[in-house]
Amino acid sequence: MSRHTPDKTASAAYSARPTLKIDLGALKRNYMRLQDNVGRHVKVAASIKANAYGLGAERVGKTLYGAGCRNFFVATAGEGKILRNTIGDTASIYVLNGPAPRDISLYNGAELKPVINSFEQAQVWLSTTGEARRRPACALHIDTGMNRLGLTDEDIDRLSRNKKMLEQLVPMLIMSHLACAPDKTSSMNAAQLARFKKAAARFPVMPMSLANSPGIALGKPYHFQMVRAGLGLFAKDITNNADDNITENTVSLMAPVLQTRVVKKGESLGYNAAYIAPHPMTIAIVGAGYADGIPVTASSSHNALGGFARMQGKHVPIIGRVSMDLTMLNITDLRRPPQLGDWAEFAGRDLLSFAKASGTIPYEILTRLGSRSRRDYFSSDGPPRKPNKIGRS
Amino acid sequence: MSRHTPDKTASAAYSARPTLKIDLGALKRNYMRLQDNVGRHVKVAASIKANAYGLGAERVGKTLYGAGCRNFFVATAGEGKILRNTIGDTASIYVLNGPAPRDISLYNGAELKPVINSFEQAQVWLSTTGEARRRPACALHIDTGMNRLGLTDEDIDRLSRNKKMLEQLVPMLIMSHLACAPDKTSSMNAAQLARFKKAAARFPVMPMSLANSPGIALGKPYHFQMVRAGLGLFAKDITNNADDNITENTVSLMAPVLQTRVVKKGESLGYNAAYIAPHPMTIAIVGAGYADGIPVTASSSHNALGGFARMQGKHVPIIGRVSMDLTMLNITDLRRPPQLGDWAEFAGRDLLSFAKASGTIPYEILTRLGSRSRRDYFSSDGPPRKPNKIGRS
Repeated sequence: MSRHTPDKTASAAYSARPTLKIDLGALKRNYMRLQDNVGRHVKVAASIKANAYGLGAERVGKTLYGAGCRNFFVATAGEGKILRNTIGDTASIYVLNGPAPRDISLYNGAELKPVINSFEQAQVWLSTTGEARRRPACALHIDTGMNRLGLTDEDIDRLSRNKKMLEQLVPMLIMSHLACAPDKTSSMNAAQLARFKKAAARFPVMPMSLANSPGIALGKPYHFQMVRAGLGLFAKDITNNADDNITENTVSLMAPVLQTRVVKKGESLGYNAAYIAPHPMTIAIVGAGYADGIPVTASSSHNALGGFARMQGKHVPIIGRVSMDLTMLNITDLRRPPQLGDWAEFAGRDLLSFAKASGTIPYEILTRLGSRSRRDYFSSDGPPRKPNKIGRS
Repeated sequence: MSRHTPDKTASAAYSARPTLKIDLGALKRNYMRLQDNVGRHVKVAASIKANAYGLGAERVGKTLYGAGCRNFFVATAGEGKILRNTIGDTASIYVLNGPAPRDISLYNGAELKPVINSFEQAQVWLSTTGEARRRPACALHIDTGMNRLGLTDEDIDRLSRNKKMLEQLVPMLIMSHLACAPDKTSSMNAAQLARFKKAAARFPVMPMSLANSPGIALGKPYHFQMVRAGLGLFAKDITNNADDNITENTVSLMAPVLQTRVVKKGESLGYNAAYIAPHPMTIAIVGAGYADGIPVTASSSHNALGGFARMQGKHVPIIGRVSMDLTMLNITDLRRPPQLGDWAEFAGRDLLSFAKASGTIPYEILTRLGSRSRRDYFSSDGPPRKPNKIGRS
């Protein structure tokens, strides 16, 4: 989290429940930076699926809309409906997982645009009644080597030759998705770019979109008319190249200290007695566990390091196995003993290293945070904006 | 999931959104089996924190109440309030993480009983106004070697000598928690039992509770007047000893097939091109990912196995990295090609092996499921009840 998050005591009137602190100011700055970066002839769309990476679709959607965003991507039609209710009628909302028969009324009611990922999905979409598609429009998603969702070579062949079908579909965007964008040196990037251009040439001229957040840093040839920012809206460190990172972290999980205790050398801690204290230590038990998004894989044992939180500006290691509602932290090295209700901060500015220490990726950490937390939205001022050239080539 | 879950095609009117199938019949049977097991002089309380392990506090609470449960444990006061609104006034609801100043009005409004985990928490609770504790009652939680929450030896000393404080607290239950209960051979169990008895003897006589679900299988000496079932309500395989397992799995994550594709030998799949096809294969892309509770740690690469789903009764391995909204499955060995909308089932009867393949524990898998899923509650008939003797000693 930004340096504006209080790292000291919580209010005296602390709760035993964790709080998710979400910096909407940083979110807005991230959007503006990415938009500055690609230049005004390229639109930055927001990919805010999974409840906006766990931060809350409504507040995030509204903030990005306020920052000028008019193109949004979600995973499911249900997510699209929630977003539409929040941001009003003037933005485009695309549904990445594509149309399914049972979801069609949602598309109609919320004026969602499906992403067509296969010839079959095109058929599903066209087989719905006229009412359901009273304002037809869609995006075509080409698979360029990820082998996940997307039109296959055969699909492209069938669809591009079927003028009548294309006329009915009214595609307004052609897109693909990069598999290895955080790694500038990967040959996949150029290979996908080439395949994307070749496939797009088979269809009528329309706006194109290839880059996700890390793809923006691959430079101008990857930007086309639209880039789709996801992680970059919410986090720093989105590519493997530190110089390319222009965004900030936006979210911290704050867990209150519920108890502190002194543990003697040789005593065991937590489930399975997984940790044996190698020397006397002071620990804090904080009110957040894996049900709040601290992964079990962030656990430690006496012979394996795990994840950590931050208290009083210092890293405090997770001790023993993370429990459902509780986590134990080694606070032996803190300058002053914490009070009940003091915060331990998870993720925040340490998002990437916390994810690595937990054997996962920042994306997953974000989507897991906060299912049980109070959400505290605030807006930090941030540093003065300055132009940057990162990602331009 | 029980054998009653359809493992074949979804309805032709499939959705692109996953469904969580929750067997309330199995839940009820699990409760009855545990109650049969401990005998009618021991109460089986339900520990249904974290939204009832992800299954939904309301439906789970109501079902357990209907099965005769009158004692519930939750982690936070907010969870207690939701449960109280669901099950009415006649059951006891204990809040495990204990009282905090900001949560007191919830305790009062929903008549929640705090679990007092430290001398400081006793002070917090007693410092609230009379109105907030107009029906005082609490549980005392003794730490007997887990070194997580719970009264320390020093706390026990201070509190047990303070007659006035005890009188004001009105403790109605004394409890502790086992660290190693799934492992019958662990010496921790007997050590904790002895410490618990010794500590309880320092306080006025009141009902005692030590065992969690796996603790039930440790036998009569661990049951006292109340056991607290958690995982055992929702899952099979709660102890390391297969013979002790008397409960059923209750939940499956059903993900719809959104697309199938044939991948050529040598092609890469998914993010980071983490999987290179060693031979031609057919894959299915299904509509659920880590935002739906399939862990990133369930991913596979061409040189490391990952998790799996079940289709047509067979295991189908996860291929490549699990995405936020999508997972790829190797369906090459299926007897018939799946249709769009066919279900892939995650967890269910495979909960334990799926958790192991994902490097975690069943508890965490459960609490992560279903944040974005439709919840489909049903009630299977199950096998005829028969008496069992497991865990009696």
